[in-house]
Amino acid sequence: MSPRNATVAVIGAGDYIGAEIAKKFAAEGFTVFAGRRDGAKLAPLVGQIEAAGGSIVARSLDAREADQVAAFLDEADAYAPLEVCIFNVGANVNFPILDTTDRVFRKVWEMACWAGFLAGRESARLMLPRGAGNIFFTGATASLRGGSGFAAFASAKFGLRAVAQAMARELGPKNIHVAHLVIDSGVDTAWVRERRVELWGKAALDNPDLLMPPSSVAESYWQLYQQPKSAWSFEMEIRPFGEKW
Amino acid sequence: MSPRNATVAVIGAGDYIGAEIAKKFAAEGFTVFAGRRDGAKLAPLVGQIEAAGGSIVARSLDAREADQVAAFLDEADAYAPLEVCIFNVGANVNFPILDTTDRVFRKVWEMACWAGFLAGRESARLMLPRGAGNIFFTGATASLRGGSGFAAFASAKFGLRAVAQAMARELGPKNIHVAHLVIDSGVDTAWVRERRVELWGKAALDNPDLLMPPSSVAESYWQLYQQPKSAWSFEMEIRPFGEKW
Amino acid sequence: MSPRNATVAVIGAGDYIGAEIAKKFAAEGFTVFAGRRDGAKLAPLVGQIEAAGGSIVARSLDAREADQVAAFLDEADAYAPLEVCIFNVGANVNFPILDTTDRVFRKVWEMACWAGFLAGRESARLMLPRGAGNIFFTGATASLRGGSGFAAFASAKFGLRAVAQAMARELGPKNIHVAHLVIDSGVDTAWVRERRVELWGKAALDNPDLLMPPSSVAESYWQLYQQPKSAWSFEMEIRPFGEKW
Amino acid sequence: MSPRNATVAVIGAGDYIGAEIAKKFAAEGFTVFAGRRDGAKLAPLVGQIEAAGGSIVARSLDAREADQVAAFLDEADAYAPLEVCIFNVGANVNFPILDTTDRVFRKVWEMACWAGFLAGRESARLMLPRGAGNIFFTGATASLRGGSGFAAFASAKFGLRAVAQAMARELGPKNIHVAHLVIDSGVDTAWVRERRVELWGKAALDNPDLLMPPSSVAESYWQLYQQPKSAWSFEMEIRPFGEKW
Repeated sequence: MSPRNATVAVIGAGDYIGAEIAKKFAAEGFTVFAGRRDGAKLAPLVGQIEAAGGSIVARSLDAREADQVAAFLDEADAYAPLEVCIFNVGANVNFPILDTTDRVFRKVWEMACWAGFLAGRESARLMLPRGAGNIFFTGATASLRGGSGFAAFASAKFGLRAVAQAMARELGPKNIHVAHLVIDSGVDTAWVRERRVELWGKAALDNPDLLMPPSSVAESYWQLYQQPKSAWSFEMEIRPFGEKW
Repeated sequence: MSPRNATVAVIGAGDYIGAEIAKKFAAEGFTVFAGRRDGAKLAPLVGQIEAAGGSIVARSLDAREADQVAAFLDEADAYAPLEVCIFNVGANVNFPILDTTDRVFRKVWEMACWAGFLAGRESARLMLPRGAGNIFFTGATASLRGGSGFAAFASAKFGLRAVAQAMARELGPKNIHVAHLVIDSGVDTAWVRERRVELWGKAALDNPDLLMPPSSVAESYWQLYQQPKSAWSFEMEIRPFGEKW
Repeated sequence: MSPRNATVAVIGAGDYIGAEIAKKFAAEGFTVFAGRRDGAKLAPLVGQIEAAGGSIVARSLDAREADQVAAFLDEADAYAPLEVCIFNVGANVNFPILDTTDRVFRKVWEMACWAGFLAGRESARLMLPRGAGNIFFTGATASLRGGSGFAAFASAKFGLRAVAQAMARELGPKNIHVAHLVIDSGVDTAWVRERRVELWGKAALDNPDLLMPPSSVAESYWQLYQQPKSAWSFEMEIRPFGEKW
Repeated sequence: MSPRNATVAVIGAGDYIGAEIAKKFAAEGFTVFAGRRDGAKLAPLVGQIEAAGGSIVARSLDAREADQVAAFLDEADAYAPLEVCIFNVGANVNFPILDTTDRVFRKVWEMACWAGFLAGRESARLMLPRGAGNIFFTGATASLRGGSGFAAFASAKFGLRAVAQAMARELGPKNIHVAHLVIDSGVDTAWVRERRVELWGKAALDNPDLLMPPSSVAESYWQLYQQPKSAWSFEMEIRPFGEKW
């Protein structure tokens, strides 16, 4: 790995997808600025990346607070030019409409949509003067389909996709690549495994090919990053080969 | 007109679309419960509907307040069964992403998405025990496309559409018709006329067929209401014959 | 019913949807020109419509033959101005890709797409000089989704939808309403009933609400016809209230 | 480059996109089987690839003839396992609906849809027994939008997309990656340059970034090929950074 004079910000650097994105970009020479609610939980990731010779800065970050997002990105950009910002905060819930409380609806939106808007706008603020950058958003099946019980989650994910689209149309001609990665599948996390076993019994885990490894998501983001500016994707939809859709 | 023992709630009973919906359903015998921020502004509408022999109750309503929405719909339902709820609050704005302030993004969402969620959920609460009802949402071009400068507005409208879809999938089988009307056009209001003249000069008004009369929107809602339950539309997209799309 | 000086052409006037469309428009005063492969099979429909005081002309028509389609529509238009043309030819098949023969793929396309193009173009030829008319196409779930096994059928239906879209964009501004009705459901025909019983046993018929009565499709076409030109739908998607989607 | 024991078939190996795909996969060690109407025109491409140390077999191929397509792919597969088939036949035309002749509509469909079906089916026939392979289709803006004047072209491209979708859903679980690349832009070919100059004058060529270099399309196909089977895209939409969409 040859180090680059560039940072990637990962907002929502959770244990699975976010961590793999961080490892991938660190392995490619980026300094990673990783933010999550409780920055202390980033210690293992920091250990892994540094052991592999990579560079990472871990921060506690409430992605719903504009000031914190701006400060986090400013710090990254001061360290080395912010070349990539990846927004990866999730908030999957399912409730019948009558059980979707005010609090749930608002909180899911703040985490999955509002925080994405902040990440996008504050990245654009830093990238526009340079006329270069990449802003990527993690989407889901619920970005495109409002399934029964998903009023809160799909509403937030639809809303995030609209932010990404509007930004892509405004910023593309200014050489900032805005993209939206639709993960149309369960990702292989502890939470998803538990939920599948709950629904279908232990046999649900017999075929590991039906869950998407977080590292594959990271590869997809790397593909988006590598696209030449003459052929950018706005939206890329990925699923494991055995997925029903 | 023969009066019906039924109410229609119009949330966002503005001077144009909302007013025409109210008149149409009043003319068909419904008692209209009309809510808008400043209920006093509903006086002319009340006058028109009553002069035509119709029945209307006007209320001041902040559609972003769950308690007010619940009370408004409860009152309607106490008067006569709430058969239809139409959510018609708009909030069209256009700003470059860097000029889209926290306040704007949040306010547009509260008006166009959050308030729609409240209207939908509180209507469903009243309709589900009866196993019948209609919940309709007003959408726009920006419900399907995040254009440049529309991060706030499209995000809210995408989000509202997701709420409508999730509710339609959950409540359809329970005999509640949830639909989303996409108005893919400028509607003929004072504000839209002014804006067109600004953009294209006075000639922009020469062809009145290119603006949608609010009464046509009301007719579309009436069509949705009349659909037999064996052939419901979730989404209906309307535009004037001369519209580019 | 008061007779109108107008004809409606129904191309693909089968026993179910086509027949109901014919009855509905006849009941509204149109003279119906009904075409199907074997015109003799139209005798019962002719009987019913005439018994109800309506007017119908039945013709044998191979909708894949440009000359026949042109002659059929010319005859209708000579009788009275062709106000509406409804293309309703279906060809639902499902085969694994390796079993989709050249013959099947081509025939399904000729019936469901090519014939629709002919119907559309030849109607437009008659309507454009008058600057008025309606051209409607029957779509299906497969118009929007290429499901496993539906390479032939979905390809034809996608293709038909493209014809409809291109015509709508070209002819709308010339006051010809082109629309595409997506029936996202099984329609209640003998064939569909048999297939459901095959798949799920006799219980599949216990809930008649899950099948769409052909008369509801006819009502939907009537709604499209009635839309004011200031608020036309290009696409209308209908399904029974209990349908999963 | 280290040679692979694998072939890639390029059906529609024209001077621009097809040629670049051939060069890219040849550079990665594949033996390229290149087919186009007049195989003699492939001589320069053969020269370039062989000069670069690559391997290519050029054939005359009428992609609309099932027998020829089968024989072409059989020959490739006999040479070395057919790992990738890329269908790249285009047929862009624009006519008002009344000027869209039977011949044009049918020919465009045969080139852009029917031939793609044949390529897909015959590739699947060879790949299914091995349980591995890649089948990619070139799409366009008109795959998703039926613009005015595009009844023939969009109908064929919509139809091709449906074939791709149906195959992806059937063959994905059998480890065959079927994908559809939507090129939402003009590609930098002599024909496109001439047309732009016609429309907008010479200034249309001032900004080369607004045309997509054929090599970028080849890179996109290479990205699709490299995706791990745990994260396949069905559809990838690409456009130059400055494109309006």
